Amino acid sequence: MRIAILTIGDEICIGQIVNTNAAWIAEQCSRIGCAIVAHSTVGDDLPMILTEFDRLGTMSDAVLITGGLGPTHDDRTKTAFVEYFNDSLVLHEHTLQRLKGFFASRNRELTERNRGQALQPSKCEVLDNDTGTAPGMLMISDKPGQVGVFFVSMPGVPYEMKHLMERHVLPRLKALSKDSSITLHKTLLTTSIPESTLADMIGEPDVFLSSDSATNTLAFLPSSSGVRLRVSVKAENRYTAESEVERIETYLRSRVQRFIYGQEGETLAQSVAKKLIEQNATIAVAESCTGGMLGAALTEVRGSSAYFMGGMQVYSNQAKQDLLSVQLSTLTEHGAVSAECASELAQNVRQKLGTTYGISITGIAGPDGGTEAKPVGLVYISVATPQETRTHKFIFGVDRQVNRERAVATAFSLLLKVLM
Amino acid sequence: MRIAILTIGDEICIGQIVNTNAAWIAEQCSRIGCAIVAHSTVGDDLPMILTEFDRLGTMSDAVLITGGLGPTHDDRTKTAFVEYFNDSLVLHEHTLQRLKGFFASRNRELTERNRGQALQPSKCEVLDNDTGTAPGMLMISDKPGQVGVFFVSMPGVPYEMKHLMERHVLPRLKALSKDSSITLHKTLLTTSIPESTLADMIGEPDVFLSSDSATNTLAFLPSSSGVRLRVSVKAENRYTAESEVERIETYLRSRVQRFIYGQEGETLAQSVAKKLIEQNATIAVAESCTGGMLGAALTEVRGSSAYFMGGMQVYSNQAKQDLLSVQLSTLTEHGAVSAECASELAQNVRQKLGTTYGISITGIAGPDGGTEAKPVGLVYISVATPQETRTHKFIFGVDRQVNRERAVATAFSLLLKVLM
Repeated sequence: MRIAILTIGDEICIGQIVNTNAAWIAEQCSRIGCAIVAHSTVGDDLPMILTEFDRLGTMSDAVLITGGLGPTHDDRTKTAFVEYFNDSLVLHEHTLQRLKGFFASRNRELTERNRGQALQPSKCEVLDNDTGTAPGMLMISDKPGQVGVFFVSMPGVPYEMKHLMERHVLPRLKALSKDSSITLHKTLLTTSIPESTLADMIGEPDVFLSSDSATNTLAFLPSSSGVRLRVSVKAENRYTAESEVERIETYLRSRVQRFIYGQEGETLAQSVAKKLIEQNATIAVAESCTGGMLGAALTEVRGSSAYFMGGMQVYSNQAKQDLLSVQLSTLTEHGAVSAECASELAQNVRQKLGTTYGISITGIAGPDGGTEAKPVGLVYISVATPQETRTHKFIFGVDRQVNRERAVATAFSLLLKVLM
Repeated sequence: MRIAILTIGDEICIGQIVNTNAAWIAEQCSRIGCAIVAHSTVGDDLPMILTEFDRLGTMSDAVLITGGLGPTHDDRTKTAFVEYFNDSLVLHEHTLQRLKGFFASRNRELTERNRGQALQPSKCEVLDNDTGTAPGMLMISDKPGQVGVFFVSMPGVPYEMKHLMERHVLPRLKALSKDSSITLHKTLLTTSIPESTLADMIGEPDVFLSSDSATNTLAFLPSSSGVRLRVSVKAENRYTAESEVERIETYLRSRVQRFIYGQEGETLAQSVAKKLIEQNATIAVAESCTGGMLGAALTEVRGSSAYFMGGMQVYSNQAKQDLLSVQLSTLTEHGAVSAECASELAQNVRQKLGTTYGISITGIAGPDGGTEAKPVGLVYISVATPQETRTHKFIFGVDRQVNRERAVATAFSLLLKVLM
């Protein structure tokens, strides 16, 4: 089943917000074996939207659309449905009742503007939305070249879109794609090896990828935490696809097993979490320039209370002294951004929270605060274990946020090495 | 100047990573007055890439492309350039020298695979990349229907792409768009008012938007922190565009000034930062379920050491007692997720770090840990000021990460109200 994703909205088009919806939709559809053929984003512009309906509807089996469903004049998706499918708006009584209930429960009056959200194209199936005011729409095209293609419209607010996808869209796509060819992906995560060396170790892809029963590809995806290897298999049925994925995975592991630390959509945080739980170990963090990002990432994982005890955001020098007893002499002689300070922070936070591991990050994120001796991008990361404390020095780049993100990713890599 | 953004890569197409590049490029181009006409994402698929070159090149003045430039077989962008522009690859001596230096400085050998990155299409201008191995490419189209259109190819790694944009692409786009019509945007941020009420207060847009000299639009953009109002003006020159933006802003402020807390791309964190600095005030955080996200957001702002002293990630009950002296009786009688605990955390972190304000978040992020009395999504946020401590109770949703994000956004809104 081929999926095209259409995002409608000036705010996405001009870059005011990042299009997380398209990624989420693509990921969910990929998981159930659909092939994503394209993403497209256009502004709140009726002719552009209609052109995209035509183009995407002709290259896919379902066009999943988000955005442009709000109650204000700049929302055009409903108009586009009416115009493209030669339809007209009619009052959808069930939606009107739902809207009345929605506003009553919030002690707000149902305005004329919101009442308009109960008007729906007559030929479409209205998809109930329990999380907001705009329902979704499902229209099955009867246009030449796209007969039977699904057009699904959902609100742009991420949690409303997710609700509609999970409740209405994914179950239907799953049922529909049962008898058609499916595409499966599996990603193996490697660390500490450059992309080109990895490629050389794995060897010529044509040889081990070739198959009579499936179309297989291998992708190299570099990231700050290491190169990810993605195997994609397209086959006539799930059984064949799954065996091909397994066959290729076995081959890859036979070549580069020692660099693989995890798989699938697993984040570095999840890999670290798994290892900490396996080892029944706990961790505490001391963060200066990252201000809490490492703790935030560690607690993104469900069930993180099993290993994450807590930490300190020791941003100011005073906080480093008061909260984690960094010695005044360390700060005056070496400064807050130094191996000595990082080491004390990691040891002391480990001790203070009584954990197996303590990890600290201190650095100059920028753009201000750099000197010749200590430039912007300089970061010390220290890992304290029951046996020893090791401190590492890095010089990242000039961008504040990138430096902070790289510090967190690097901290996870260091931790992973200790845990492996 | 019309810009189309093309992202190439299976990993974006199937939703394995979020397309932050497209948003960043769009934002930068919007700032200099370019109009973004479309974003498109396709996989590492040569025919699809060629089709997009054709389509996007015909609807824009510049196609900005990211991805598909790596050294491995799944990277197709260079092949697409060669094929689309009937070109061939030649050795680019300067790039080869740069690659040699790049690998030497990292004590790595230049492999045959990486040497291939010095092969470039003969007709293109090679754009030096100081941050990675793959240079960018600039080709000026001579195809019918798109004569003079710029095709710019950049690596998909965000910081490499940004480097090329800043060094090579933006200066050129700016120079080129000097004499053409420009599009400017300005966004006013409102809080504590629903979208439909705001629209009613502002009145019929056609009336105040209409102009003889420019095309103006107003967009309502709901978000977890409030509705943003974006004014967009397209005019023949910068002067006209700027005066129109100013005229419309004055009108909007005359209608809804009391709900406006900030403007432009300002984040809630930046608005809070500005007010804290104005008031010469400082802040400390105590985070349970957010694990550091609030501190991370506060320190995203450049110069945050002026107001952010630090905080505690009191994730476990033990940490709440040991680090922030929450009373045992509070935990046994009311639990860690309670108004009482939130209040003690905010007061104690304020006192411990000697700051003007203390703010705490404690809740059940989920998916586990909920009960009938304390469901997943229950979050208490407390703000301690020199005068008083106020604690607020919220019930967000069922998604772990969304609950955590909404807790942070809500904490900022509460803080902003205190500061306004």
